[in-house]
Amino acid sequence: MTKITPIVLCGGSGTRLWPRSRKTKPKPFLPLVGEMTLFEATLDRSNNAAQFAPPIIVTGKDHLAHVEAQGGNVDGASIIVEPEAKNTAAAIALAAERLAPDAIMLVCPSDHHIADVAAFRNAALAAARLAEQGWLVALGIEPTMPETGYGYIRRGEPLEEGFRIAQFVEKPDLARAEQFLASGEYSWNGGIFAFQAGRFLEELARHRPGIADAVHTAVGRGRQDGLRFHPDPESFAAIESESVDYAVMEQTDRAATVPASMGWSDIGNWQALRDARERDETGNCARGEAELVDCRNVLVESDGPRVSVIGLEDIAIVIDGNDVLVTTMTGAQKVGKLGGASRQ
Amino acid sequence: MTKITPIVLCGGSGTRLWPRSRKTKPKPFLPLVGEMTLFEATLDRSNNAAQFAPPIIVTGKDHLAHVEAQGGNVDGASIIVEPEAKNTAAAIALAAERLAPDAIMLVCPSDHHIADVAAFRNAALAAARLAEQGWLVALGIEPTMPETGYGYIRRGEPLEEGFRIAQFVEKPDLARAEQFLASGEYSWNGGIFAFQAGRFLEELARHRPGIADAVHTAVGRGRQDGLRFHPDPESFAAIESESVDYAVMEQTDRAATVPASMGWSDIGNWQALRDARERDETGNCARGEAELVDCRNVLVESDGPRVSVIGLEDIAIVIDGNDVLVTTMTGAQKVGKLGGASRQ
Repeated sequence: MTKITPIVLCGGSGTRLWPRSRKTKPKPFLPLVGEMTLFEATLDRSNNAAQFAPPIIVTGKDHLAHVEAQGGNVDGASIIVEPEAKNTAAAIALAAERLAPDAIMLVCPSDHHIADVAAFRNAALAAARLAEQGWLVALGIEPTMPETGYGYIRRGEPLEEGFRIAQFVEKPDLARAEQFLASGEYSWNGGIFAFQAGRFLEELARHRPGIADAVHTAVGRGRQDGLRFHPDPESFAAIESESVDYAVMEQTDRAATVPASMGWSDIGNWQALRDARERDETGNCARGEAELVDCRNVLVESDGPRVSVIGLEDIAIVIDGNDVLVTTMTGAQKVGKLGGASRQ
Repeated sequence: MTKITPIVLCGGSGTRLWPRSRKTKPKPFLPLVGEMTLFEATLDRSNNAAQFAPPIIVTGKDHLAHVEAQGGNVDGASIIVEPEAKNTAAAIALAAERLAPDAIMLVCPSDHHIADVAAFRNAALAAARLAEQGWLVALGIEPTMPETGYGYIRRGEPLEEGFRIAQFVEKPDLARAEQFLASGEYSWNGGIFAFQAGRFLEELARHRPGIADAVHTAVGRGRQDGLRFHPDPESFAAIESESVDYAVMEQTDRAATVPASMGWSDIGNWQALRDARERDETGNCARGEAELVDCRNVLVESDGPRVSVIGLEDIAIVIDGNDVLVTTMTGAQKVGKLGGASRQ
């Protein structure tokens, strides 16, 4: 079959992992789990010439230096530099415009963690096969808890290698999330999609002709600069910011899903990071010099100072430059709203 | 009556307020409550010429620079520089040897906090009157909780301005401490004593003749150097380390106590410090730049970095140089045993 072209989306900064993640060094470019950064690990997952073509990285000017510093080792990688951030529908369309119509694209956010790379590649393969048949495919992450921070996908009738999507569901409250988990019919929408490039553009033109036209023009008037491609800023500026979920996936009658159980996490806050990390027998994990006494499930992340902790459970302690964060794991969702996080 | 001579004891470093308190800058010399350091506040409490004579400060070489820097504003203060630390019996005896036999001495630890200075002065006056009658007087701090970290004093028959001491009790377990509190017969032994200098030396000679003789020799062979007096190191080296409680107070049949309710705290750990500080309506107190969200009874002490805290209760966060301490208040008693605290 056609090799899969990874479309690595590298936008946004995210404030929920402040103070470690900052505007100047945002989440994808930090080695949050293991030795590689999340961005490097994203490239590494599809660094397999038998299955994958070289990636197209879609990013903005602010992240370009990081992208080039961390993505330089991938042969044939190319970069689309967005003049400004216009959400995922436009970002994916830019890449689709640069590919042959029958190319299979796999949209990969660059700030997630996937523990089981083999499972990811198997799911990508199944999704690609469905995409070749004209389906627009979302990987459906098997849920492991009643998470209220994610969108859900309800499975419909079975297909050869997956399911039709019966419904996209916005972030539910806890009671509904628990029902979803119990029913076994729901997956998390992790933002990983497989499309045939031409089919994607057709569907975009049908449901969001404005975005499709503007992207087409921006690419037509764009300029190549080595490995970088710069869409035309003026055409791009007019584009409506919309997610691919809203603009295409929820509109098309050819949406499908492939279930995937692959140790996925969006590393969406300090609790999620702790859960994705290797921990000791008391559930603690520390980076930097730390002494933990009578502690359980504590995350310590220090860029220098020695940290001593006594008697605490389920908290995160993060030291970065002139900032110290101490939060309960349940409080971690409020980190992005802190004064420090907004000041960066 | 005779003016009271404060004997300000300034020894020990203490590791329980690590990392703020360190060997190089120990607890008495830090502005832990209010603007003054504990040592400065100790001098200030008896800085009242109508009631008090100039103080005698007993300290060691390590603390001398701090003592002179922070005590220089008290007229007539003098300093006894111990060649080495030999606990309180010897320290008090050094001062007694330097005073006239009928002088009234008030022994004041320099690392405690007393909120109500007027109450302190009243209690000191009552204790001094008893001391003039030949009693050896311990202030009896009115207990406010079943503290297991202090020694207790049980009151005996009433005297004109206080009580005979029926018994000294070592640090009790919680059940006994609760009995003590409920009975109303017990006070905390805060280490504040009033003696006539001659009577003290008589009792010391009776019960610990070795200490009394050695101190007498060390003072006889000592040398004056401006405001500093240096006891003879060789004679002093032979002295047995013993507390005044063991060596004298528990031995004499003339031990008395004056009850005192004066907002006393030994600032013995981070919890005690939090409780002594002014706090906001949610019980939090912060020094340094701090943002507290959904927090109660949290102490933040930072020497620079900005601290953000979410969702925590009854914890202390202390940042000093290259060290960060995060502890529950109940865990605060273990601070002295941390690796960091032993490394200083």
